[in-house]
Amino acid sequence: MSRRISVLGATGSIGASTLDLVARQPGEWQVVALTANCQAEELARLARQFGAELAVVADESCLGELRAALAGSGIEAAGGAQALVDAAARPTDITVAAIVGCAGLAPTMAAIEQGRTVALANKEALVSAGDVMKAAVARAGATLLPMDSEHNAIFQCLAGNDPAHVRSITLTASGGPFRDWTAEQLAKATPAQAVRHPNWSMGAKISVDSATMFNKGLELIEAWHLFPVGLDALRIVVHPQSVIHSMVEYRDGSTLAQLGPSDMRVPIASCLAWPERMDTPCPPLDLAQLGQMTFRAPDEERFPATRLARQAAEAGGAAPAVLNAGNEIAVAAFLDGHLPFTRIAVMVEELLARYAPPPAASLDEVIAIDAEARDYARRMLETV
Amino acid sequence: MSRRISVLGATGSIGASTLDLVARQPGEWQVVALTANCQAEELARLARQFGAELAVVADESCLGELRAALAGSGIEAAGGAQALVDAAARPTDITVAAIVGCAGLAPTMAAIEQGRTVALANKEALVSAGDVMKAAVARAGATLLPMDSEHNAIFQCLAGNDPAHVRSITLTASGGPFRDWTAEQLAKATPAQAVRHPNWSMGAKISVDSATMFNKGLELIEAWHLFPVGLDALRIVVHPQSVIHSMVEYRDGSTLAQLGPSDMRVPIASCLAWPERMDTPCPPLDLAQLGQMTFRAPDEERFPATRLARQAAEAGGAAPAVLNAGNEIAVAAFLDGHLPFTRIAVMVEELLARYAPPPAASLDEVIAIDAEARDYARRMLETV
Repeated sequence: MSRRISVLGATGSIGASTLDLVARQPGEWQVVALTANCQAEELARLARQFGAELAVVADESCLGELRAALAGSGIEAAGGAQALVDAAARPTDITVAAIVGCAGLAPTMAAIEQGRTVALANKEALVSAGDVMKAAVARAGATLLPMDSEHNAIFQCLAGNDPAHVRSITLTASGGPFRDWTAEQLAKATPAQAVRHPNWSMGAKISVDSATMFNKGLELIEAWHLFPVGLDALRIVVHPQSVIHSMVEYRDGSTLAQLGPSDMRVPIASCLAWPERMDTPCPPLDLAQLGQMTFRAPDEERFPATRLARQAAEAGGAAPAVLNAGNEIAVAAFLDGHLPFTRIAVMVEELLARYAPPPAASLDEVIAIDAEARDYARRMLETV
Repeated sequence: MSRRISVLGATGSIGASTLDLVARQPGEWQVVALTANCQAEELARLARQFGAELAVVADESCLGELRAALAGSGIEAAGGAQALVDAAARPTDITVAAIVGCAGLAPTMAAIEQGRTVALANKEALVSAGDVMKAAVARAGATLLPMDSEHNAIFQCLAGNDPAHVRSITLTASGGPFRDWTAEQLAKATPAQAVRHPNWSMGAKISVDSATMFNKGLELIEAWHLFPVGLDALRIVVHPQSVIHSMVEYRDGSTLAQLGPSDMRVPIASCLAWPERMDTPCPPLDLAQLGQMTFRAPDEERFPATRLARQAAEAGGAAPAVLNAGNEIAVAAFLDGHLPFTRIAVMVEELLARYAPPPAASLDEVIAIDAEARDYARRMLETV
């Protein structure tokens, strides 16, 4: 009996890893919808390979190219924001929500409304729309499986345990490519340097977030939404080898940790097979060969992002959405060469101080706050 | 509603840690039986402190002292091997089986026959009587909770998972106090040096077992009995900091590990509260303060014990019981100054080669094999 799966963000790194695993289980999966932003040719290739029902480009201007690439395949093609939401709403057993950034918000919500299982790799959606999304999950009776390696690790470490017994949760952070850089060096960091992550092969946006540690800040907010502990119980430790992906400490002094290779197929497989497990081609962990793991406290002077994220979570309401929107604009400006690396956090901190809208009560309000925060951030950029 | 508990081996280090936790939950526990080998005064003090129903010394010659020390308390006193078994058979909700060595075998079996929960810290019992004990657990419908820090770690890492998905189990080993010693240094190791364990405060027998790595060998056999994986899937890694207590790797490449302080109250609390958790006074894990964990492959040239244990498990039948009995005699001879440190493993290997009885089918046969193996070992000692 095959299971129905949609992959939102099929041409990104999470999408590719997901489909790699799906391809290793022939006959087990029926691919419903695959979506991309505008990589029409690659999307069409994947849709053909996996016999998808539907392929959707978010950018409607790429629809012509997609249609041409799918000609004769019998696979439906669609384009635009609403088509993306409609695709996410098609019934599945599991939907992988892997669209980077706030663009994934509406389709992720549509997938949740199905009331089935959503594997969430789009952390910005939960950061921006945390309360609204959690309410939708509860209302629809959906199951949200965290696909981020850290949150998936925590999810695994909570299995079989009562969350009431949790004393603390510790997110591990690689520290990114600049973890040993001085403040002076950081001020001159280039986009090319920032996207060269030591452990993980990722997209540019997430790589920059790793370099600033905004990635860890967003994950802190995400963990705060996903797991029933207070902010005080959420910790971060820098662990450059990224072998331990995160940990849960219980009231008796036991800490459970999930370890694994720096291969997203591990947390993805955990979600795809949950509550069972499936084979992956990932090699066994060999700690003797690794030799050592190191740990240090995060330096919030050089990397203020985790401090800002904690403050935004403490402030609550719309602050995490503003933090996320500001960061997306600042990262784009950094990648375009318009903003120095160290100004990303400065700009986000200023945005949080200047723009503090009331909490969103609906998806539309979240989207409006996100848009307004971006506008605000763009105007701030003009003065840089 | 209080729970009934007996502690077999109450005056040892596991017994003391167990009672420390029981004392921290006033009103939650009703102490049934406390037993010791012959530390009558300490046993009487504990029996009075915890309001035990019964105190038993295994060595009947200490019964007079126990009776005198309990005079006027209303607490029953008893002595001798049968009294120990009778005490273990008294109904409880949980019995902590923490008698060191094969002396704990019969009382542990009596506790299992109750059909309730037995927290097993007496690894030799499972090593010597594995098949017989497992059959008794199944027959009585008892629950066996592993209390050794390594096996308790594995037990926690298996929670909420189907054991069929396990790819491997890795026991961590501190490597003991001699892990960096040369073969020449090992040949001259003294009992005083061997009992000075770097991480754990333990009894003399277990400390020597840690120094020879027979402890890890016995744990390997124990794990093979407790968890449904083959010997090939059981690994050992030397991890001098003893922060990771053991690990389970799943087929998807996820490894779950349990970490904690070198304080037996953590695994004991896990057993006492299972499937819930209870508070312990153990400090939180601070990996940033720890700084690093290191790992290396075990060196079976200098420390042949794990190789011998694996061979004994592969041979099956009575071989693990013979290995354990031979080790107990050899360790006693080493502690008495009669046997050089490096001869412990040599003697056990020779005993395994010379004495290979058929498998035991009952507890009596296990005890007979154990006794015969000891006699054999003692005769071998006379020729040293």
